[in-house]
Amino acid sequence: MRMYDIIEKKKHGEVLSKEEIAFAVDGYVKEKIPDYQMSALLMAIYFKGMTDKELLDLTNCMAESGDMVDLSEIKGIKVDKHSTGGVGDKTTLVVAPLVAACGGKVAKMSGRGLGFTGGTVDKLESIPGFQTAIPEKVFFQNVNQSGVSVIGQSANIAPADKRIYALRDVTATIDSIPLIAASIMSKKLAAGSDKIVLDVTVGSGAFMKTKEEAVKLAEKMVAIGEGAGRETIAILTNMDVPLGVAVGNDIEMIEAIETLKGFGPEDFQEICEIFAVNMLVLGEIGDYKQCQKLVKEAIENGSALEKFAEMVKMQGGDESYIYHPEKFKKAPFQKNLTVPKMGYIQHMDTEMCGKASVILGAGRETKDSIIDSTAGIRFFKKTGCKVEKGEVLATLYSSSEKKLEEALSYLKSAYTFSDTQPENMKNVLAMVTKDGVTTY
Amino acid sequence: MRMYDIIEKKKHGEVLSKEEIAFAVDGYVKEKIPDYQMSALLMAIYFKGMTDKELLDLTNCMAESGDMVDLSEIKGIKVDKHSTGGVGDKTTLVVAPLVAACGGKVAKMSGRGLGFTGGTVDKLESIPGFQTAIPEKVFFQNVNQSGVSVIGQSANIAPADKRIYALRDVTATIDSIPLIAASIMSKKLAAGSDKIVLDVTVGSGAFMKTKEEAVKLAEKMVAIGEGAGRETIAILTNMDVPLGVAVGNDIEMIEAIETLKGFGPEDFQEICEIFAVNMLVLGEIGDYKQCQKLVKEAIENGSALEKFAEMVKMQGGDESYIYHPEKFKKAPFQKNLTVPKMGYIQHMDTEMCGKASVILGAGRETKDSIIDSTAGIRFFKKTGCKVEKGEVLATLYSSSEKKLEEALSYLKSAYTFSDTQPENMKNVLAMVTKDGVTTY
Repeated sequence: MRMYDIIEKKKHGEVLSKEEIAFAVDGYVKEKIPDYQMSALLMAIYFKGMTDKELLDLTNCMAESGDMVDLSEIKGIKVDKHSTGGVGDKTTLVVAPLVAACGGKVAKMSGRGLGFTGGTVDKLESIPGFQTAIPEKVFFQNVNQSGVSVIGQSANIAPADKRIYALRDVTATIDSIPLIAASIMSKKLAAGSDKIVLDVTVGSGAFMKTKEEAVKLAEKMVAIGEGAGRETIAILTNMDVPLGVAVGNDIEMIEAIETLKGFGPEDFQEICEIFAVNMLVLGEIGDYKQCQKLVKEAIENGSALEKFAEMVKMQGGDESYIYHPEKFKKAPFQKNLTVPKMGYIQHMDTEMCGKASVILGAGRETKDSIIDSTAGIRFFKKTGCKVEKGEVLATLYSSSEKKLEEALSYLKSAYTFSDTQPENMKNVLAMVTKDGVTTY
Repeated sequence: MRMYDIIEKKKHGEVLSKEEIAFAVDGYVKEKIPDYQMSALLMAIYFKGMTDKELLDLTNCMAESGDMVDLSEIKGIKVDKHSTGGVGDKTTLVVAPLVAACGGKVAKMSGRGLGFTGGTVDKLESIPGFQTAIPEKVFFQNVNQSGVSVIGQSANIAPADKRIYALRDVTATIDSIPLIAASIMSKKLAAGSDKIVLDVTVGSGAFMKTKEEAVKLAEKMVAIGEGAGRETIAILTNMDVPLGVAVGNDIEMIEAIETLKGFGPEDFQEICEIFAVNMLVLGEIGDYKQCQKLVKEAIENGSALEKFAEMVKMQGGDESYIYHPEKFKKAPFQKNLTVPKMGYIQHMDTEMCGKASVILGAGRETKDSIIDSTAGIRFFKKTGCKVEKGEVLATLYSSSEKKLEEALSYLKSAYTFSDTQPENMKNVLAMVTKDGVTTY
């Protein structure tokens, strides 16, 4: 078998066999196949795509290139949740303890933020003492005991994906839907959960800018999950506006705590509850109605918040922060962005909002950047709001006064105003399962 | 400027600027841009193509990466000739002295054979003493004095093309018409002639398998040549059957000598005369009719053959071989391929014929292979011929008895027979100039 022939085949749109895919991926990981051949193949895949069968083979191959986590020591059905990323996306912080409070099992490995999107691990680490690097045995014990644990992804999960992703990143082959699907799902398959709920974000703050693209990605990921014997559903959520009102590590943590108490911003509260219900249904805790009731109760009776505090404590964190979020440090500097003239907020370029938060110090510009957990943006008015001249749109927080100025002018350009009220946006746009697409 | 953005742009089918193309090519030659980015760009070009303007910029950039030969010391209009390669393609051997005998100027750099196609330099070197590596000054003197010299391509002609071609060769991006056009034309522009006649071969023994592809390639090359201020025409010739009756270095040399005397095989004789006439017209020696007359005369009065002998002598070769071709060594072993059953030769897979000749030792399997100049195939019957069972189709020659057997079974499978006579093939299919395509 020759890599040349594999590239040639894909270039002509032919279907690669499992053996050919394994030859390419394994050879690449073992450095027998050079970067220049792999990048040519990736570009050919960008143009010619992959069938569901090819994609399953590719994903399995990438997953099996490293550790395949065995969660069988944890009792019950383990349901994983993954978001394709967004701005202000702190859903896991709420959903993981909420599901556990309702009797579900969440053994979750999360990633760090990069680019304009935040990462769950970074947010959790804003709680003093919180450990995200935990031995597997303890991780299993924690989930068995309290139903939930969220840790950082181990180094040896899908190393083939890491190598291929790094190459895609420098050869302009990131934005290939099959390659994105394989990349995400390889890590999900390796992480070992029985079932998977995917949050596929759509809009100016997401990687998928349109619903059509997002549906395609969701379908590919569901096909891979189901093909690998893991029941998988995907929920398309709106990321054409920052999720919730807080972007930044400490303030998102506070928002998550408020949401666990039922006092979250309307869009974020709805999305968290929908994800929790779907995870519980997949975890066979009850039917949809029963699970809705369980979720409402867990929020109202405080057990969801308690479960979060329990998880924080078990992972070495200071649980008092959960009950006293005022303990989180405040940023030394802050500045307001105000409304330039009366009207409606027509649109917010959410990627720009995310980038403004990165400038403030809330995210990483490079892999080695150190995060300022107090930095971020609080939004008082979002898309669709009627606003008066001079009203505060958002407050920016940072440990650097200089960065505040830069981020302010950046954030300013993210807004578009108009005289007429824009159409209302839905928080949840569609659901994709093996049976097809349901649009809301 | 970033290579990433250049790849991204081409991937989306956008037009690259001259500066972007120069950044990519110069950066690659200087090893500032890694192979994996260049291979991704090449694959994107494969899928998205290039405009004539982009292609001219790319070709100029590749040409200028090395020596730009200055032929101004040679008086008159220098007309170059280039073939996209074929099996039994010894046209230059005839055309170069024939044009010079009629008063044209031919200062030609030729390549060596690789793969299933032969190279002019290899064929010339089958004359004892013939030198193809000649100092530039002597090359100029020779052309000024006798009107013709054919030498090997210097090492520093279009080094960017060499590097890019080597990468294309391992990343399945050879068969891109714009990249083929740029590769050929970069060497032609660097070689310095004023005008260019291209032989674009078509069929089973050529890189272009269909007339449509060949027209596209011809159009691209003509556009590049004209864009660079060099009048360029392309003649599409049939390579769905070996050209002439000889494939192999010594026997092709003998066939060229016969053709210079007017006794060449009908197809080869016609093609040589057409190329000579067109080169003379471009060289402003006369109008088409006048040049046709000159060519006929030079063949009939022996001046074409004398010019060839003169060229051989000036380049250190033993000119007696030209007047006494029986001096060429004979292969120690030979074997006949015979007709399996009565009928017509329906088709000859000409690439397979070429590969059979390479097996015999007439070509290079790798860059370092040593050529057996006596090896080759003489065809007695070609496509369209009526044949009787047992009749000799071809004779194979080699210095290795073992190779004869292997090549024989290979050559056998190149033939298709039928009961009905196939349609007659034209030797010249079309002419492409800046004014358009004329089909014959």
